Amino acid sequence: MTSRPTYVGAIQAFNSYGAKMIGIEQDEEGTQTALLEAEIEKLAAKGSKPKFIYEIPDFQNPSGITMTLKRRKELLRIAEKHDLIVVEDSPYRQLRFEGKTEPALLGMNPDRVLGLYTFSKILLPGFRLGWMAGPNELIQKAVTAKQSVDLCSPPFNQSILYEFLHRGLLEKQISVIIKAYRRKRDFMLSMLSKYMPKLPGLKWTQPHGGLFLWVTLPETMDAGEMFHAAIERQVAYVVGTAFYPDGGGHNSFRRNFSYSSMAEIEEGVKRLGEVIGSWKGSQESAIMTP
Amino acid sequence: MTSRPTYVGAIQAFNSYGAKMIGIEQDEEGTQTALLEAEIEKLAAKGSKPKFIYEIPDFQNPSGITMTLKRRKELLRIAEKHDLIVVEDSPYRQLRFEGKTEPALLGMNPDRVLGLYTFSKILLPGFRLGWMAGPNELIQKAVTAKQSVDLCSPPFNQSILYEFLHRGLLEKQISVIIKAYRRKRDFMLSMLSKYMPKLPGLKWTQPHGGLFLWVTLPETMDAGEMFHAAIERQVAYVVGTAFYPDGGGHNSFRRNFSYSSMAEIEEGVKRLGEVIGSWKGSQESAIMTP
Repeated sequence: MTSRPTYVGAIQAFNSYGAKMIGIEQDEEGTQTALLEAEIEKLAAKGSKPKFIYEIPDFQNPSGITMTLKRRKELLRIAEKHDLIVVEDSPYRQLRFEGKTEPALLGMNPDRVLGLYTFSKILLPGFRLGWMAGPNELIQKAVTAKQSVDLCSPPFNQSILYEFLHRGLLEKQISVIIKAYRRKRDFMLSMLSKYMPKLPGLKWTQPHGGLFLWVTLPETMDAGEMFHAAIERQVAYVVGTAFYPDGGGHNSFRRNFSYSSMAEIEEGVKRLGEVIGSWKGSQESAIMTP
Repeated sequence: MTSRPTYVGAIQAFNSYGAKMIGIEQDEEGTQTALLEAEIEKLAAKGSKPKFIYEIPDFQNPSGITMTLKRRKELLRIAEKHDLIVVEDSPYRQLRFEGKTEPALLGMNPDRVLGLYTFSKILLPGFRLGWMAGPNELIQKAVTAKQSVDLCSPPFNQSILYEFLHRGLLEKQISVIIKAYRRKRDFMLSMLSKYMPKLPGLKWTQPHGGLFLWVTLPETMDAGEMFHAAIERQVAYVVGTAFYPDGGGHNSFRRNFSYSSMAEIEEGVKRLGEVIGSWKGSQESAIMTP
């Protein structure tokens, strides 16, 4: 079970093991736990149950949405009731620009949650290092599985990272990143307000951290078809459908705001606004909706 | 299909995907291709065939045995006849101490062989970098599979390695290693001759390269049971059974000769000779065989 949309890399990883994924719609509070429970009960009625619930509770990739405390509690109540494991994938957790950090699912229920974290987003992606925390039984299984994949993560990199952490340099680095990314997010949001055409149904998320925001187009528009027109104008996005584990998302796409320069963000959003405004579905949607 | 014994890491990796492995006995010329062909034909009679043949042709881990040219030709003839892919895992290929390098399976049939190579044994294991070569179709599948496992190998390490290779430093490094490992192998072989008890059936391989040699004990002895006695004397080996994909190998073990110092090799082999000489099965075997 995953939210809809969810991280494309997780979808690929689950696919490679032939997993059948069930996506649960999310709203601005995160995965809709009422829908989640309904799906689980539907499975239970058939004598089946999911292997685990995969969740990105903080500044989700791709949507930028953070799960509220109420939903977190609900999620864990459901997991407890149906004896399910929750995989908490939280690569952006430390990158909060504003507001209060919600408790980690792992902290709320250390017996039932396997937490996945990474140095890729808070220090450097080129090292390919992260960490996992949770019940010993699950960790031991993961260690065995990892051994058969790569024996271990590079000791050379681990050793450099250890030294870096040991000297207490990470906190400082995180505050530098937060400041830089917050400026980028603020700027992209203001550029979106400035350059996006006024279309019914066109909207975007307002993430409180992380790297991504999510744009929803009018229903009549197809972000996959429009992608080629965007590329012709040398502006790109990741098409929404890539993030849907079981179909959907045709009228949405992900924008990363951390990577590009301010000038690039402005020019990119401007061009994107032009592409969207002149794309066929946009007129249609404007006509259809009074 | 693999040889018997074969690399324990490969066994683990295949196991993690639920593979059914069929082991083919090897002798001093490598995998016995006549037995391999017989097994494949047995499967074919049942309308089945192996997914691929896994082979470590050069200084095999664990045995140190190198496949002869004749056997290589036979292996590829069989693969061709039955339309099978051969996975050539050759981490030690560059570490030849003496004799002529046999052609790589990949070079002999680039359309049917997927070659796996590594920098771990010729430069440094701490980088966890290697390379794969073979038919484009297979490489593309491997790239996709690798993406869903780790996205990519650390770019940081790749960049350092690129610089190292670009400066032409690898050849020099390999000749340093070969010289050092050859001395160790020569020394371990002479220590084995000196300290091993004279028992019928006790023998070891004489590898022409690589890192390992393989000791076979009398049939009546169990290397797994004897392991604890060895550990008590603070000398270790890897028990033979670990390298058997489908059972067997109780009276054998692997010795690494590249890692320990000369003094450690002498002391280790000496203690091992004492453990073997005083182990229960050894008297039995001496009595049983006139």
